[in-house]
Amino acid sequence: MSIVNVVFGRPLASSEAESQQIGVAKGVPVFGLDALGSAAYGPEAALTLLIPLGVAGLAYLVPLSLIIIAVLAVVYFSYRQTIEAYPKGGGSYTVAHQNLGMFPGLLAGSALLIDYTLDAAVGISAGVAALTSAFPALHPWTLTLCLSSLGILTVVNLRGVRETGALFMVPTYLFLVSMFTAICIGVFKAVQSGGHPHAVVAPPVPHGAIAAVSVWILVKAFAGGCTALTGVEAISNGVQAFREDRVKLARRTLAIIIAALAGMLVGIAYLVKAYGIVATDPSANSYQSVLSMLLGAVAGRNWFYYTAILSVLLILIFSANTAFADFPRVCRFIAEDGYLPTSFSNRGRRLVYSEGIVVLAVITGVLLISFGGITDRLIPLFAVGAFLAFTMSQAGMVAHWRREGGKHARKYMIINGIGACATGITVLIVVMAKFREGAWITLIAIPALLLLMYRVHRHYQKVNQETKSDTPLDVMQGKKPLIVIAITQWSLVSRQALSFAMNLSDEIKVVHVRQEDTKDDFCDTWHENVVAPIAHAQACVPELIELSSPFRFVIQPITQYVFKLAEDHPDRRVIALIPELIEKRWYYYFLHTQRATLLKTELLVQGNDRISVLNVPFYLTGR
Amino acid sequence: MSIVNVVFGRPLASSEAESQQIGVAKGVPVFGLDALGSAAYGPEAALTLLIPLGVAGLAYLVPLSLIIIAVLAVVYFSYRQTIEAYPKGGGSYTVAHQNLGMFPGLLAGSALLIDYTLDAAVGISAGVAALTSAFPALHPWTLTLCLSSLGILTVVNLRGVRETGALFMVPTYLFLVSMFTAICIGVFKAVQSGGHPHAVVAPPVPHGAIAAVSVWILVKAFAGGCTALTGVEAISNGVQAFREDRVKLARRTLAIIIAALAGMLVGIAYLVKAYGIVATDPSANSYQSVLSMLLGAVAGRNWFYYTAILSVLLILIFSANTAFADFPRVCRFIAEDGYLPTSFSNRGRRLVYSEGIVVLAVITGVLLISFGGITDRLIPLFAVGAFLAFTMSQAGMVAHWRREGGKHARKYMIINGIGACATGITVLIVVMAKFREGAWITLIAIPALLLLMYRVHRHYQKVNQETKSDTPLDVMQGKKPLIVIAITQWSLVSRQALSFAMNLSDEIKVVHVRQEDTKDDFCDTWHENVVAPIAHAQACVPELIELSSPFRFVIQPITQYVFKLAEDHPDRRVIALIPELIEKRWYYYFLHTQRATLLKTELLVQGNDRISVLNVPFYLTGR
Repeated sequence: MSIVNVVFGRPLASSEAESQQIGVAKGVPVFGLDALGSAAYGPEAALTLLIPLGVAGLAYLVPLSLIIIAVLAVVYFSYRQTIEAYPKGGGSYTVAHQNLGMFPGLLAGSALLIDYTLDAAVGISAGVAALTSAFPALHPWTLTLCLSSLGILTVVNLRGVRETGALFMVPTYLFLVSMFTAICIGVFKAVQSGGHPHAVVAPPVPHGAIAAVSVWILVKAFAGGCTALTGVEAISNGVQAFREDRVKLARRTLAIIIAALAGMLVGIAYLVKAYGIVATDPSANSYQSVLSMLLGAVAGRNWFYYTAILSVLLILIFSANTAFADFPRVCRFIAEDGYLPTSFSNRGRRLVYSEGIVVLAVITGVLLISFGGITDRLIPLFAVGAFLAFTMSQAGMVAHWRREGGKHARKYMIINGIGACATGITVLIVVMAKFREGAWITLIAIPALLLLMYRVHRHYQKVNQETKSDTPLDVMQGKKPLIVIAITQWSLVSRQALSFAMNLSDEIKVVHVRQEDTKDDFCDTWHENVVAPIAHAQACVPELIELSSPFRFVIQPITQYVFKLAEDHPDRRVIALIPELIEKRWYYYFLHTQRATLLKTELLVQGNDRISVLNVPFYLTGR
Repeated sequence: MSIVNVVFGRPLASSEAESQQIGVAKGVPVFGLDALGSAAYGPEAALTLLIPLGVAGLAYLVPLSLIIIAVLAVVYFSYRQTIEAYPKGGGSYTVAHQNLGMFPGLLAGSALLIDYTLDAAVGISAGVAALTSAFPALHPWTLTLCLSSLGILTVVNLRGVRETGALFMVPTYLFLVSMFTAICIGVFKAVQSGGHPHAVVAPPVPHGAIAAVSVWILVKAFAGGCTALTGVEAISNGVQAFREDRVKLARRTLAIIIAALAGMLVGIAYLVKAYGIVATDPSANSYQSVLSMLLGAVAGRNWFYYTAILSVLLILIFSANTAFADFPRVCRFIAEDGYLPTSFSNRGRRLVYSEGIVVLAVITGVLLISFGGITDRLIPLFAVGAFLAFTMSQAGMVAHWRREGGKHARKYMIINGIGACATGITVLIVVMAKFREGAWITLIAIPALLLLMYRVHRHYQKVNQETKSDTPLDVMQGKKPLIVIAITQWSLVSRQALSFAMNLSDEIKVVHVRQEDTKDDFCDTWHENVVAPIAHAQACVPELIELSSPFRFVIQPITQYVFKLAEDHPDRRVIALIPELIEKRWYYYFLHTQRATLLKTELLVQGNDRISVLNVPFYLTGR
């Protein structure tokens, strides 16, 4: 137990919940890593799609960024309201479910779950890819690095929200400080030089344009840039993680994250244009990330550059933390409504929803291993889920305000309505733009997950229907149960079991399966060992039943006898008493047949309500 | 079940044992494949070691072969007597154990077991290597071919002795016929041409000598050639597989195998010398096996050559069958004496010792996978085990005749004594010659296996000591047991369990662990559901115990309560009654917490003799 305590921390009592709650400072790293990390790959994704336009493409980056920031603003206002309206945690699932109905809720929920799963895998592998491209010697260790990062994320999240926040504070704020420092320096230089700053380390000269601008290219660039928005919804599911006044703290955290993200997006777009930085082909050897070129151009290759790049790498790797913070919470909300296994709603030893964390870790691990740690092909998929969830959430809020009424209801309805339209259109654009690259997979995965959830729900309903009782106890004493004991040989084990059986009932059947190959004197000593002492005590003598087993099966004759006995006595309960040797060490079990276990399993799987299994253990001292 | 029947055959009743017994025709393939296959690699192994001597090395092959055949003859006479003296199966283990004591017996036994394990892996991979060198296109499939052959051997052997014999008859006799045809043609041509026959396809011209002859080279060549003798002991363990008169049939089978092996060894040695065939370097590209060169020289590259080569390949692959025939039998003999898990001595559905077959298959599979299907480096290891077993067996027979006395005892003692010395010296030679190539591994593995066997035996003795009972039943009725039921909520499941408990005892404790996060009205409805109806029926009311769980553990408070209760009532038995929901489909178990299973396990592992576990199942109909 002590190792478990060291790795995962001591168990926390439910009463300690308050001590685990966080404030704004820890809220930003816990819920904001994904959104902030987006600044590192959103502009890059858009610029990569503009490569064919050459330097001319740069002209479109600022307007595209402004559109994306406008969508971001709409999403911000929407979630700001959601947090207030659903202080218990109101992610897209809750909002859509409570305002639009179960199906829209589950649609939003499954979109989010798929988004987070992909997000975790892609976040880790993208971060590790950035690391290995910075240090090519690490390349053979790609998968190991991915799985180690996954392990760190899993353990840290299992240790609780506070520790997660504490651990990720340093890289988060390092990232923010270095990015804004770079942006300030850059903007200062650009303004000073009248919009044409001199690059300290010049970015590579871009290739000439190989295509004319087209709506399609711009639409694709927009869809690419939209990945910058994923992760923004995270706080809405995690309001309960904050301490009081939690609505205020959650909203403030959201504001900080969005402001920082918007600031970085504007700053990067402006500087990229000012320095004339064009994305390089990611598959080429000379590939360099946009951020790296930008940092080099602004400040040169000094310690500041390397610190900033390191913080970017850490943010990318740990951006998966947002998935770890939110996936378990979404699972919990859905599980509480009975559409996922109930165990998702149990808080673990550190007051987090451990099962969700473990399930996410396993799925992510499987994805990382099956793709060998290189999940490029998953990247196009995950914006779909995020924007679908945004849309459902906004639409839900429209319904919310309509029902709620009040002073500002009309104004809010309009804002959320615009938001729903904007994000809905974005979903369509992203699906269209990335359909062939894999967005269709999400369109299959979401219905599949929905179907699974409905089946889970139906099963729980059935079980509930079959087991729920409106009637009080039926006190009907009836006859004592029939007891069947299978005994192979006379030993202290069988002696103890038989003596126990006589304590419970007067009707005992001792079943002995004749073994042909081995010496067997059980029946010969039956009278001496059992009948004589019982007759002496004037108690009821158990019946000895000898079974032959032509095919040398040992379990089958016993189970058949038990089932037949229950059938012949439809008014009686039957107890199969199974003596079991308990060894002190697990590896000694290899030395014994697992007949007791097999017999128990067989009886429980094939039996009926009137047959129960009584395990009478016999402990070996091992001395 | 029907798939199992198709793959492994229908179960055979113990009374059908006779129908599974075999005669000479099937005995040769079942027990002889390894010995006969030796003819294909024994001479090759010796010749490879003579390569440095060039053509001059050929002069030593015939004398070396004659020495090997002399050892073979001694071994033959020894095992002929063993079969008669131990008609129940008297391999090296039995003979050494019964005549020299337990330790020599186990030494022989573990030597044999290690020999067979290596034999199975090396046989399969050597056969597949021969196949892939004949058809290089198969090379990438080496491991797949190895594992498929292993699969075939395993399934065939699990299907029983008769089917194994029937399946391997064709390749065995095809091999014998083609080898002897080739030898007859070759000898005829050689004699006709006065000892210098003209090769149809000339063997490659040998390199010149690069070393002078030395005792060391000859000793190594002898040790290499001795691999031809492994597998000869197989029949001695399997006498019981033959039908009556089994001693006669077993001896006849042994005679046929030895005669065929000796004939092939002599024939090959003579022809190799006559045709001037020198082994080629196995690591060179131009490598060709001695048998291939010999067959080409005698008969040319026609359909006969290809048929013969094919039969050699099959014999090599399936030579592992001897290990599959004998390993389980040796395990059985040792298990019956309590030095290996007893389950090795259970005859499976097809009357073979299935567990031994499965264990051998698993170990072989692991070896094949870890070596990637190329087990060259294991080859030097396995003659040690075989010859150590020979030596122990012969020494045992000396003691046997000494004790037995009788007319021929003195003569037999001398034969066996010579045999023991000859094979003992061979062990030393093989260990010396191959020590650095890996024979030392056997010298570590044998003591390790011996240690394991002694520990297994000691554990069985202890268990026996702790459980054996010389005393009859102690009839002491005493008080009824205390029953503890853990109930989460009022349902048909708990209702049934409680009603059952009341049938067994008057003292019932209902334990309820308070769940903080969920709605919980169990205690509020306790009176209405339980107390009222019981009071009405004037029975004993169960005690309701509410447990709090500050750390949200569910199992721990219950087990702690049970253990405390047992401690407080040292004179009472405690039954933990565990209601369990039984689902119709296994995958529904993912939807439930496994609390019942965990609680059972925890109670059995941590508990004591007075605490037993009663499982009361509740079956969901799934409709």
